[in-house]
Amino acid sequence: MLFERVAVIGVGLIGGSFALALKQAKACGHVVGAGRSAANLELAKERGIIDSIAEDAGAAARGSDLILVASPVGQFRKIFSSIEKHLKGSAVVTDGGSTKRDVVAAARAALGARVAQFVPAHPVAGAEKSGAGAASAELFRDRRVILTPLPENSKETVDRAEKAWAACGARVSRMTPEEHDAVLGVVSHLPHLLAYALVHEVASRGNSAQLFSFAAGGFRDFTRIASSHPEMWRDICAANRDCLAEELARFSGKLDEVKKLLDDPAALEKLFAEARAARDAWVRSS
Amino acid sequence: MLFERVAVIGVGLIGGSFALALKQAKACGHVVGAGRSAANLELAKERGIIDSIAEDAGAAARGSDLILVASPVGQFRKIFSSIEKHLKGSAVVTDGGSTKRDVVAAARAALGARVAQFVPAHPVAGAEKSGAGAASAELFRDRRVILTPLPENSKETVDRAEKAWAACGARVSRMTPEEHDAVLGVVSHLPHLLAYALVHEVASRGNSAQLFSFAAGGFRDFTRIASSHPEMWRDICAANRDCLAEELARFSGKLDEVKKLLDDPAALEKLFAEARAARDAWVRSS
Repeated sequence: MLFERVAVIGVGLIGGSFALALKQAKACGHVVGAGRSAANLELAKERGIIDSIAEDAGAAARGSDLILVASPVGQFRKIFSSIEKHLKGSAVVTDGGSTKRDVVAAARAALGARVAQFVPAHPVAGAEKSGAGAASAELFRDRRVILTPLPENSKETVDRAEKAWAACGARVSRMTPEEHDAVLGVVSHLPHLLAYALVHEVASRGNSAQLFSFAAGGFRDFTRIASSHPEMWRDICAANRDCLAEELARFSGKLDEVKKLLDDPAALEKLFAEARAARDAWVRSS
Repeated sequence: MLFERVAVIGVGLIGGSFALALKQAKACGHVVGAGRSAANLELAKERGIIDSIAEDAGAAARGSDLILVASPVGQFRKIFSSIEKHLKGSAVVTDGGSTKRDVVAAARAALGARVAQFVPAHPVAGAEKSGAGAASAELFRDRRVILTPLPENSKETVDRAEKAWAACGARVSRMTPEEHDAVLGVVSHLPHLLAYALVHEVASRGNSAQLFSFAAGGFRDFTRIASSHPEMWRDICAANRDCLAEELARFSGKLDEVKKLLDDPAALEKLFAEARAARDAWVRSS
């Protein structure tokens, strides 16, 4: 058994799936959960995701060997402050936040020297569903998890965090927090903003009922991520706002190019064909 | 039986599915196909989509009771010219084009007085797949088909076209060509441009291999429509370029708003929550 006692702070889609996956892999003993919604924690306990409910994050962390922080990233600083004085010397802390520079800054500010026990992680496996009801032991199977280790981490600490995520079935890789936020800003955060913006635009039109009634499967898939958790995405966008401001500006520039190509059908077709070829190659290889 | 002999010009996803659906509904007798790709026509015949292959569009139309034109819309004018002199007086012509103002203009220019026999239609049921291999008798089941009847059409001609589409299982409604292009410009053409543009942008970056390797399910669904047929979408964009130029400009304006909200997390969360609520309500009702 990798970890005798595991604390999950924020037992939603990510936290709940982490607990279920570790249990399925027999990589943990007791799982204690903490979070803001008593109803969600009760549901998590009923579903066997967690074995007990702690009063608060500090109580969950006390005596735990592995702590996953999986709340919206805006809560992280407060949670790190609550757990700091309760951490065992041998405990490993990791997280499920979708941004990493802000999470590292919050950890440094709140954990002090104990930041050496924190190995930042981002499981690249979301869904538009949220809460313990959506958790699944298979969520991370063959999915990417990105660790952004800190200079303060010992090799052993990073290895233990990596083992926890690997036990969930994930493919673990490593990069710097800066690289992480730049990469995810393009392939995850930007499309979320575009999908939210398009749905909001359609809903804001005077003829929105007619527009929605003729929207079909393409619109449905394109906008699936606009059903994602608003608070979570508020925090992600706030944390990565410098990258996102730049990406939005670049994408508007791209749309200007596309707009010009409306008068040059051959060049527009070439852009479409190049995009299709790139996507098809990616889908085949992934 | 509604139509003894049916001609399908362009036996791809739409044309092939139309033939299969009419056959399944026992609404037609012989189906003859015509098109640019001999290999695709052979495949359509092997799959039982069509019963015979005509030399060209004119030969297919000759003696047919119902003619569906389902090529990329850029081909329509040439096709209408080829079939004009072969049309039986009682024949009904309809189409599967995704734009309507240009199709109506092409029909008026090429069909002359016989334009009265043409009832423009748009089955709002695409897929990123194309060709006879992708055709399915169920493609139009419970999907929208929009007719944009012409002042020249008799009531009986429109009713016969409507019956053909209804026999395919579609929910048929009517609007003007102008209204059609404006509505579809927002909920179909614009998202296609955004998806193509995002994939093209990612593929154009120096670190595109890394970017694609960390793209996940959200990116996959968001960009599914970027695997659509480039020639078909070139023609749609060319035909609806005035609407699309306006929509692209409006959407860039929307992205500017979103960019400003990166510094106002509460307002950004409100926009996300409104978009999610609108999308969830639409999904529930559709």
